[in-house]
Amino acid sequence: MKKVFTDANVVSMASDIRDSTGYQCQPNTAIAVENGKIVAVGQQAKQLDWPTQSLKGCLVTPGLIDSHTHLVFAGNRAGEFEQRLNGVPYQTIAKQGGGILSTVNATRAASEETLLALALPRAEALMRDGVTTIEVKSGYGLTLEDELKMLRVARAIEQHLPIKISTTLLAAHALPPEYQHDADHYIDYICHSVIPAAAEQQLADAVDVFCEKIAFSVDQAEKVYAAANAHGLKIKAHTEQLSDLGGSVAAAKAGALSVDHIEYLSEADAQLLAECGTVATLLPGAFYFLRETQLPPIQALRDNQVPMALATDFNPGTSPFASLTLMMNMASTFFKLTPKENLYGVTRHAAQAMGLDNKGQIAVGFDADLAVWHCQSPAELSYMVGTAPLAGRIVGGTWYDNQGSR
Amino acid sequence: MKKVFTDANVVSMASDIRDSTGYQCQPNTAIAVENGKIVAVGQQAKQLDWPTQSLKGCLVTPGLIDSHTHLVFAGNRAGEFEQRLNGVPYQTIAKQGGGILSTVNATRAASEETLLALALPRAEALMRDGVTTIEVKSGYGLTLEDELKMLRVARAIEQHLPIKISTTLLAAHALPPEYQHDADHYIDYICHSVIPAAAEQQLADAVDVFCEKIAFSVDQAEKVYAAANAHGLKIKAHTEQLSDLGGSVAAAKAGALSVDHIEYLSEADAQLLAECGTVATLLPGAFYFLRETQLPPIQALRDNQVPMALATDFNPGTSPFASLTLMMNMASTFFKLTPKENLYGVTRHAAQAMGLDNKGQIAVGFDADLAVWHCQSPAELSYMVGTAPLAGRIVGGTWYDNQGSR
Ligand SMILES: [Zn+2]
Ligand SMILES: [Zn+2]
Repeated sequence: MKKVFTDANVVSMASDIRDSTGYQCQPNTAIAVENGKIVAVGQQAKQLDWPTQSLKGCLVTPGLIDSHTHLVFAGNRAGEFEQRLNGVPYQTIAKQGGGILSTVNATRAASEETLLALALPRAEALMRDGVTTIEVKSGYGLTLEDELKMLRVARAIEQHLPIKISTTLLAAHALPPEYQHDADHYIDYICHSVIPAAAEQQLADAVDVFCEKIAFSVDQAEKVYAAANAHGLKIKAHTEQLSDLGGSVAAAKAGALSVDHIEYLSEADAQLLAECGTVATLLPGAFYFLRETQLPPIQALRDNQVPMALATDFNPGTSPFASLTLMMNMASTFFKLTPKENLYGVTRHAAQAMGLDNKGQIAVGFDADLAVWHCQSPAELSYMVGTAPLAGRIVGGTWYDNQGSR
Repeated sequence: MKKVFTDANVVSMASDIRDSTGYQCQPNTAIAVENGKIVAVGQQAKQLDWPTQSLKGCLVTPGLIDSHTHLVFAGNRAGEFEQRLNGVPYQTIAKQGGGILSTVNATRAASEETLLALALPRAEALMRDGVTTIEVKSGYGLTLEDELKMLRVARAIEQHLPIKISTTLLAAHALPPEYQHDADHYIDYICHSVIPAAAEQQLADAVDVFCEKIAFSVDQAEKVYAAANAHGLKIKAHTEQLSDLGGSVAAAKAGALSVDHIEYLSEADAQLLAECGTVATLLPGAFYFLRETQLPPIQALRDNQVPMALATDFNPGTSPFASLTLMMNMASTFFKLTPKENLYGVTRHAAQAMGLDNKGQIAVGFDADLAVWHCQSPAELSYMVGTAPLAGRIVGGTWYDNQGSR
C-alpha cells in the first residue's frame, strides 16, 4: 500500500502551537503514505515513483480527533428536552425516570446489536465533519456486564466504519440505583471488579471519573485512578464542570492525560496542569446546552502553555451535538479561542489528550489520517457552519469520499 | 403527476399554534399529491388508486422554510473572523477594507456565473436540513445593476436545484461608498430607480430595509416602504437589532410581512405587530455570533399572539450558519422557544413571513413540499444537531433523497 497524495495545501500541525509553521498553509505539497503511515512530506514525496492521487489544491489537515464522546447509548431524551422548555419542573421529569437514569435504563435494556446500530450514524455524523479518530466512553451501564457491553460496542464501530476508536471506561459516571447512598461500595466495585475485567479483556484504553458534588468525590476519584494505574490504563477526568472541588489537580497528579470541562478550574491550578503534562479539554457544547456562564480560565491556560483540546462531549443529556466544527465555532464564540487554537484542539492536542503519539500531525512517522477540505484557509473551519466543506477523509492511507459533500 | 405517499407520521402544522392538533403526530397517514399540490390527506388519500411510495413510518413535516437569508455573495470573511479573534481592532480591519464593504466589493466584482456557483452549495446545505423554500435578499450590490444581478442569481437557484426561491430587494442594506454622507439621495435612488426596475423586471417579491443607527433611519425606511407599496411589492424589515428606533412599528404600519431580529423591540410594541398581522422573525444565529445579550421580548410576543418565525439570516458577516435545525436548537437554548414554536417558526409562520399562502402546512390545497425525517417526534429536530435525520424532501410532489443521509 504505497501512494502519494499530490497538490495538497497542507496545514501540518507539526510544530508546537507557539511556533507558527505548523499552522501555515503549504500549497502544492505531496504526502507519501505506506502501510497506513506518512513516510514523506514535500519534495521527498514528490520524487517517489508511486501511484498518485491529486488532492486538487484542497486544504489538508490532520484528520480531526474527537477526544471526548459518549457515543454509545440507547433511549431518546428529546421528550425531556421538550418538557423542560414547556416548563415541566426538573423534579417532575426525574420522578418520571428522566435524566441520566433514563439513558442508563435504556442502555442496559439494549442489545449490543441495537447499541451498535444507534452508534454508527452518530459516528458517521462526526465523519462528515472530517473526524478520523473518536474517543468513546462507557458510563450508561453502571454494572460490570453493561459497562463491558458498551465498551465492546464502542470497539465494534471500528469494524464497520473507516474510523479509529479509543475506549474509556466511565463506570464512575453516576451512582447506579443499586448503590444509592452507598457510593463508596460502588467505587470499590469499580476498582476491584470492573477495572480489572475491562483491563483483562483489553476493552478499555483509559478510565474516567465524573468528579463533582452530584457525582463522585475527589477521594473516590483518587481510588479509581490508583486502580487504573495499577492495571496500566490511562486516566481522564470530568472535573470542575459545576464547581471547584480540586478534582483537576488530583487527576493531574495521578497522571491524567486530560481534565475535561474545567469551567470552574481556578487560574492558580493551570500551572500544575502544565507541570503534569495534562491537557485541558474544553467542551463548549455542554457549556452552551447548559447555558453555563462561568468561563474556563483560558488566559491562564494560555499563559501556562497548557495544551487545550476541544471535543463534542456528544451525549444525550448535556451535549447532543455531533459536529466538531460546530464546537470550534462555539469555542471561538464563547471562549474566544482563535481558529489556530481550535485546530490544535481537534488535532495535535486532542491526540495528546488521548495519549496517541502517532496521530494529530502531518509528519513522517505519523498515521496517515487526514481531512481534505474544499476551502482555502484553516480559519474557515471555525468560521462557517453547515456548508460541509469536507471533500473526503484519508484513514490509514486510504481515501474515503465525503458522502454529504458539495 | 399523481401519487400517494403512504405510511407517513404526519405533523401537519394545519392548525393555529394555540390548537394542539397541528403539532400532533398522525401515524400511518397517506398524503395524495397531484400537479405539485396536496389533494388529500388521510383516509381519502388511502382510497385513491394512484401510484404509491411508502415513507416507512418516517416523521413528515411541511418542508422547512428559511424566510431570511443573504445567500448570494462573493468574498470570504474568515480572515476577518480570525483577525478579530487574534485581537486586531475593528478599526484596523475596516481600514483594510473589511466588514460589509469587503463583501460588497467582492460581489460587485463577481459575475452572475460566479455568484451562482457560490450560492448553490449554500442552498444545498440548507436542503440537507429539510429546507424546501428559501428567501434570498440582495444587498451587497448597492447599485441598480449589482442589486438586479444579485436578484437574477437568486432566481436562478431554482433552475438548478429542487428548491423554491423568493427574492427580496435589500438595496437599503448599507450606504454604498458612492453615497457617503448622502443617505437621503441614496434612498431617493432606491425609490426612483432600483425599486421600479426590480418591480418592472419582476425580480423581487419584496423590499427590505436595514433600519438602524448604523444604517437607515425610520423616515428613510418609510420612503422605501411607500415606494415598495406603490410598485406592488411586499415589505420586510431588519429592525430593533441593536437599538429601539421604532422601526418595527413603522414597518408594521406600512404593512410589513415581518420584522426581523427585534432583540430591542419594546414589549409594548408587540400588540401593534399583532394588530397589523406582522410576523416577528427571530434570528438566533446573529444573536449568537454577535454575542448579543439583549433577548427579544418573547413572552410579550406570545401573550399578544404574534406569530414567530425563525430563520438562519445566513450571511458572511454576522450569521455564517447554513443550518435551520441549528437555529431551532439555538432558539430553544437562547430564547427558550419550545420545539413546537420552533417548528411553527420554520414552517407555517415562516410562510406567513414571506406572504406564501400555499406553503408551510400539510393540508389540501397546499404545495406538496415536505420534509421526511428518520425520527419519531418533532422535538428531535430542535434537540439534536449534526446527526442528519433527514431521509429526503418532497418538492412540488417529487421525492428527492437526502444526499448526506444515514
Ligand atoms: Zn462527558
Ligand atoms: Zn439579515
